Amino acid sequence: ILLANGVYAAAYPLHDGDYEGENVEFNDRKLLYEEWACYGVFYKYQPIDLVRKYFGEKIGLYFAWLGVYTQMLIPASIVGIIVFLYGCATVDENIPSMEMCDQRQNITMCPLCDKTCSYWKMSSACATARASHLFDNPATVFFSVFMALWGKQGLSGKNIGDDPRFIAEYEARVLEKSLKKESKNKETDKVKLTWRDRFPAYLTNLVSIIFMIAVTFAIVLGVIIYRISMAAALAMNSSPSVRSNIRVTVTATAVIINLVVIILLDEVYGCIARWLTKIEVPKTEKSFEERLIFKAFLLKFVNSYTPIFYVAFFKGRFVGRPGDYVYIFRSFRMEECAPGGCLMELCIQLSIIMLGKQLIQNNLFEIGIPKMKKLIRYLKLKRQSPPDHEECVKRKQRYEVDYNLEPFAGLTPEYMEMIIQFGFVTLFVASFPLAPLFALLNNIIEIRLDAKKFVTELRRPVAVRAKDIGIWYNILRGIGKLAVIINAFVISFTSDFIPRLVYLYMYSKNGTMHGFVNHTLSSFNVSDFQNGTAPNDPLDLGYEVQICRYKDYREPPWSENKYDISKDFWAVLAARLAFVIVFQNLVMFMSDFVDWVIPDIPKDISQQIHKEKVLMVELFMREEQDKQQLLETWMEKERQKDEPPCNHHNPKACPDSLSGPAPSHAYHGGVL
Amino acid sequence: ILLANGVYAAAYPLHDGDYEGENVEFNDRKLLYEEWACYGVFYKYQPIDLVRKYFGEKIGLYFAWLGVYTQMLIPASIVGIIVFLYGCATVDENIPSMEMCDQRQNITMCPLCDKTCSYWKMSSACATARASHLFDNPATVFFSVFMALWGKQGLSGKNIGDDPRFIAEYEARVLEKSLKKESKNKETDKVKLTWRDRFPAYLTNLVSIIFMIAVTFAIVLGVIIYRISMAAALAMNSSPSVRSNIRVTVTATAVIINLVVIILLDEVYGCIARWLTKIEVPKTEKSFEERLIFKAFLLKFVNSYTPIFYVAFFKGRFVGRPGDYVYIFRSFRMEECAPGGCLMELCIQLSIIMLGKQLIQNNLFEIGIPKMKKLIRYLKLKRQSPPDHEECVKRKQRYEVDYNLEPFAGLTPEYMEMIIQFGFVTLFVASFPLAPLFALLNNIIEIRLDAKKFVTELRRPVAVRAKDIGIWYNILRGIGKLAVIINAFVISFTSDFIPRLVYLYMYSKNGTMHGFVNHTLSSFNVSDFQNGTAPNDPLDLGYEVQICRYKDYREPPWSENKYDISKDFWAVLAARLAFVIVFQNLVMFMSDFVDWVIPDIPKDISQQIHKEKVLMVELFMREEQDKQQLLETWMEKERQKDEPPCNHHNPKACPDSLSGPAPSHAYHGGVL
Repeated sequence: ILLANGVYAAAYPLHDGDYEGENVEFNDRKLLYEEWACYGVFYKYQPIDLVRKYFGEKIGLYFAWLGVYTQMLIPASIVGIIVFLYGCATVDENIPSMEMCDQRQNITMCPLCDKTCSYWKMSSACATARASHLFDNPATVFFSVFMALWGKQGLSGKNIGDDPRFIAEYEARVLEKSLKKESKNKETDKVKLTWRDRFPAYLTNLVSIIFMIAVTFAIVLGVIIYRISMAAALAMNSSPSVRSNIRVTVTATAVIINLVVIILLDEVYGCIARWLTKIEVPKTEKSFEERLIFKAFLLKFVNSYTPIFYVAFFKGRFVGRPGDYVYIFRSFRMEECAPGGCLMELCIQLSIIMLGKQLIQNNLFEIGIPKMKKLIRYLKLKRQSPPDHEECVKRKQRYEVDYNLEPFAGLTPEYMEMIIQFGFVTLFVASFPLAPLFALLNNIIEIRLDAKKFVTELRRPVAVRAKDIGIWYNILRGIGKLAVIINAFVISFTSDFIPRLVYLYMYSKNGTMHGFVNHTLSSFNVSDFQNGTAPNDPLDLGYEVQICRYKDYREPPWSENKYDISKDFWAVLAARLAFVIVFQNLVMFMSDFVDWVIPDIPKDISQQIHKEKVLMVELFMREEQDKQQLLETWMEKERQKDEPPCNHHNPKACPDSLSGPAPSHAYHGGVL
Repeated sequence: ILLANGVYAAAYPLHDGDYEGENVEFNDRKLLYEEWACYGVFYKYQPIDLVRKYFGEKIGLYFAWLGVYTQMLIPASIVGIIVFLYGCATVDENIPSMEMCDQRQNITMCPLCDKTCSYWKMSSACATARASHLFDNPATVFFSVFMALWGKQGLSGKNIGDDPRFIAEYEARVLEKSLKKESKNKETDKVKLTWRDRFPAYLTNLVSIIFMIAVTFAIVLGVIIYRISMAAALAMNSSPSVRSNIRVTVTATAVIINLVVIILLDEVYGCIARWLTKIEVPKTEKSFEERLIFKAFLLKFVNSYTPIFYVAFFKGRFVGRPGDYVYIFRSFRMEECAPGGCLMELCIQLSIIMLGKQLIQNNLFEIGIPKMKKLIRYLKLKRQSPPDHEECVKRKQRYEVDYNLEPFAGLTPEYMEMIIQFGFVTLFVASFPLAPLFALLNNIIEIRLDAKKFVTELRRPVAVRAKDIGIWYNILRGIGKLAVIINAFVISFTSDFIPRLVYLYMYSKNGTMHGFVNHTLSSFNVSDFQNGTAPNDPLDLGYEVQICRYKDYREPPWSENKYDISKDFWAVLAARLAFVIVFQNLVMFMSDFVDWVIPDIPKDISQQIHKEKVLMVELFMREEQDKQQLLETWMEKERQKDEPPCNHHNPKACPDSLSGPAPSHAYHGGVL
């Protein structure tokens, strides 16, 4: 209350002392700094108990969760590397990419844009095809199943929420908490806001969120149009070196624009979510946090993943066909995927956004900006305090030193960053098996970076009790579920896995993949081009083109219903959908099966809890007896004394396990 | 131990007294009989607390669960009736069935069996088509979604397992139990069986289960062959009245055979499962029960549902095509579904098996056999005791009267019956919307029947503590999950819902269903029949047949690839699969959404639990203080007495909530 009235500028617990220097006495902060907040100890387990003791349970839980998550990334990374290496090893045996690279096949492809683009040779996309095999091979399917199970099982919070260390103490705390809560509820219930009061705020919320999601979509659409027009413009360029790198240039610039927009909007959306939650006036701190997290997550999720979703599921699907292309705004022809399949592009998009986000957010926002702020504050302080007080500054009190540090802003940004990363790792893992590896590398740094931040750069936060990671657990579970279905769709629709299988079992004459590339291409008679869309410079290849090929399953020009969708299309579509059903239910079944086979850990924990309860009761009994004996002896000796048996002079007699071993500093209180 | 050595013939708690007669004093048993075990009170809630007090927690839980389940069936039944009435109301507006009944269309269908069957007119299947609309209409799809949610949510055990009444006492009991368990474990651990010892038993288990499942499949196959040969034999019959009822006769007899086999095998499999579990030598009573339940459930599930699965997903799907039929054992042509779709047949099969099972098992096994056993035992007793002891018999002791009653055989059969019923209600509800209604009617009787059995016909069972319904909860959840996917497949593959949608949006010229029947039929040129398979008597219809129609999506005889699977087939297949994906994920999402929107009940419960804990602790504290005061006063007054404050003479001072309010009769012990 004093804080709210402006009497105090800030209230925070003090740090234990300095963490550096030789002549500081030994304290927890120094220990943490040496054993935890250095990059040198990255291979060690974190001293979670000490962290919890020093910073409180909530922050302890965050680091414990981060540690478990990082540990779990290790097997995922290893399997991902193996899958990638398998792709590298088999790239030369891959018949479809060999066929695409084969100069003798000499397949003439239809132009990729109207007028300015010319026909092109299939073999010019050889490199892309070979690269895409690295990520689009049968091992990826197994990896997806593995990662779907990993995502559903691994982070189900069992390891964290039910950690017996936490539970043992939790029991007692719940008691205190519920007592507190009751008194708190009584106060707030008096001025309860009705639904009518809240309605405008809720409406604002809904409208703003929809508006911001629309903004995100609009930006993605803008980038698409930028790509289309850039590609057309570059294709007009006469320099052959420019023309040969069109795709690379356009993709790279577009992804970078996307990345910058994502990072900027992330910050903007964070602020807006905070503002929106404030006007909702939630009842409790916890409710405020949950609403804020939900909104911020929704916005950041849409923001981060929209471009990736576009590439994975929409790009190249609604392009129409030669002679009847689909146009947006009547002038931009929808872009197609590279001949190696959209998976390669998805992979590029994903890796750049994921890596760029991690690097920029880690380096700039988590290291750079706090350092800068510190500098600014230091300079300000220096200007205020005249130089003759130097002596005083040197011996300044602990609280003055701590005041120079950045205030603690909550764990939400840290969690959010990790959850979005978890999304990158699980949602589209089918297209980028190396994602877990990059996440692992990032997290190893992230743990120590965060640790350093907490030990050296932030004021010591007020210890907050927490039972589990709260709403984050639900979000993680949601992502885990979403990951299954998205991976199923990526494998069946974005990759060429299913068309290859269908070809192998339905069409292949000798049981090999020979002829697959030819099978996926439809023919188009160039005389059927609409007016003004035929290439201006058709003789680029040195011979006259009569039939060009395009990637789709349609009837050939000599068929009765020419350019209609063919039977093959429907057969492949049915196979793709069947795969989705099989994949999803297989993962669900396996997930349940794993749950059923490995119920040992929870059982052990529940047994331990029971044992602890038994001990608790025994303790009570014993103490009662002790007390009686004590009383008997006391009463005889010192009748005049009326001392209650449980107080600070006689702490051993108190039922310790009930009042709970609260962190020692919880009694320090906030001092300035 | 005495029981095991044969010293005692049986050990059981006594009943409270007689439940009938005017001059018996008032007791719990009489109260239960009047307020619970009569059919007259079927509309009342059950007196669960009294049941729990009298029979112990486990049986109380069973009846509580049964009550909740029955209550939940009420909304499901109402919605089911509405769906059925909707079907009745719209049957005359249904264009496909109108087209089928239209005599003018005059579609000649291909024969349903080789040689003996002749061509037949589409309009002769008019009645089936109209009947099948009752169950196969758009409302069924909504009903399936509703029931899938109902199955997933309703019985998730929240309402039962977490019932605060149970939990309040559970807390204390766990303590006792875990103490007991520890001592028990110590004994058994000494003679722990190694994996090597158990291997033969496990192998026997596995082999037996696989063998019995194979037996079930073989029986179903046998019934199929019976149907095929019966149909062919009846078709040869010259009497026209026999020939017109072929389908009804064959279906009815086959289903009855199935039903009898299911009921017989149910009993056999129950015994085998018990034997298999015995040779496994499980460690504890609970482990024994769980293993037994798992095995028995697996076998009974396969036994009950295999014929239904066959009709739903396999019948009529692998028949080949005219001129190239599929034969099993080289002589039996696979049977086709009726022209109204297999859904009608599935509906008949389901209703007969469900109703028959309930009626026979309820009446015969639950009423008839116990009565007969009682009679036999009574006669035996009469023969043993000479007539001059009549006086003695009349005034025989409570334990003698009770010995005449049937011993309590566990709740497994009761639960099993209900779970199998739950499977009928949820798994194939898309084909038979009235299933919940029949289940409801059955359960209303079942509750009172079971109640009567427990009160009047069984010896009073030893009270057993139970926290929740145990493994049954997992089985229920499993069925709930399975129901979603099975209903999705029933709607998309067994019903004509998807082909109709596809026709409406892809092929229909004027946006109506006119022409749908024609679209689903392919043409066959009768000159393409294989040798010896053409009908012997083709002129049955009065005109010569050149083209006959059959239900499939294949190319017409005048096409290039005649009788090949057509594009339509793949398009419909893709639509069916897409529907499965949409349905499954929609239900999953809605289920999660409902969970998220209605978290109030668990919250309330957890708050209540916290409050109870708080109260418990306060109680402790107060008692401690009381005791101190007591001690102080006592010690002064009666120094010579060394009485411990907590014993039977002073029960008020004992911490009641810890030792737990055990059912009163638990102290009676077993007496004979």
